[in-house]
Amino acid sequence: MPRPAHRKPDYHKINKDLFVLTYGALVAQLCKDYEKDEDVNKYLDKMGYGIGTRLVEDFLARSCVRRCHSYSEITDIIAQVAFKMYLGITPSVTCNNSSRTEFSLILDKNPLVEFVEELPAGRSSLCYCNLLCGIIRGALEMVHLAADVTFLQDRLKGDRVTEIGITFLRKLDEKKYRRKK
Amino acid sequence: MPRPAHRKPDYHKINKDLFVLTYGALVAQLCKDYEKDEDVNKYLDKMGYGIGTRLVEDFLARSCVRRCHSYSEITDIIAQVAFKMYLGITPSVTCNNSSRTEFSLILDKNPLVEFVEELPAGRSSLCYCNLLCGIIRGALEMVHLAADVTFLQDRLKGDRVTEIGITFLRKLDEKKYRRKK
Repeated sequence: MPRPAHRKPDYHKINKDLFVLTYGALVAQLCKDYEKDEDVNKYLDKMGYGIGTRLVEDFLARSCVRRCHSYSEITDIIAQVAFKMYLGITPSVTCNNSSRTEFSLILDKNPLVEFVEELPAGRSSLCYCNLLCGIIRGALEMVHLAADVTFLQDRLKGDRVTEIGITFLRKLDEKKYRRKK
Repeated sequence: MPRPAHRKPDYHKINKDLFVLTYGALVAQLCKDYEKDEDVNKYLDKMGYGIGTRLVEDFLARSCVRRCHSYSEITDIIAQVAFKMYLGITPSVTCNNSSRTEFSLILDKNPLVEFVEELPAGRSSLCYCNLLCGIIRGALEMVHLAADVTFLQDRLKGDRVTEIGITFLRKLDEKKYRRKK
């Protein structure tokens, strides 16, 4: 189980609005660059993957999370420690299968879309926040966990909540996963 | 003079690293899209302008700054209130001409480049943080102040500090500038 994240000094924090609007500019640029929503989604995921691989080391150092023994614990850490630390929200977690390899993060609110009322015209398949999926995927891969991470529901598409699905693809390889001290 | 900004609740804050890496992804994408550094700079400025026009209303509401009577006061507010609120840093301010229309914001450190060691190869004219200039320009224009905002020095280009120059282009039109209550 995670220990509570250390309170980070103020210089690690910035105003959310600046981030949210900058992210909007990034998505708008990609929509300009790629005609197909699928390509924008893919690119956001790819960018997020790169960001996740860079964030994870710092996250592990700062969050002081202990070794996890199940996918369920890992998902709890993503929701309760990582989302809280990076986006200031704590999604709820559900487990979606009996073998406990498929989970959902349910976001009642999503700071990334605060300035977005609806998807841009003609962009009904856009996963506006797909960067988040890429970040989770990239961060997990750096701790030797392969996972599919995708949006299952999205309030921007009229769903009641926003739901990110995480499907772990391989059993934990404990030797590999053990954090290097 | 500014009153101290209200301490904002935590949900307005996010982790800086996520923003800095996302901004890096945006710049990388623009470098991919535009061959010439000048075009990337122009585009970052343009994006920043749009962000500035959206941020300013929220900034005025939250910061509770009072009406300014000089360009010098306005520049102090940008440095001491806006930079502090949005990026967690407080640049120092210098005035560069006797008619007090040209100022510099001197940034000893620049959070936006924390993960950037040097400009990308072949991108020696890139103003990596040009979004900031656009944001300042856009925000000022929304309070009816025309200004040129450009980088005069940049640590990424080997300068000792990073310096943003602000040249106010018109005298304050007091009627226009007075904040609507």
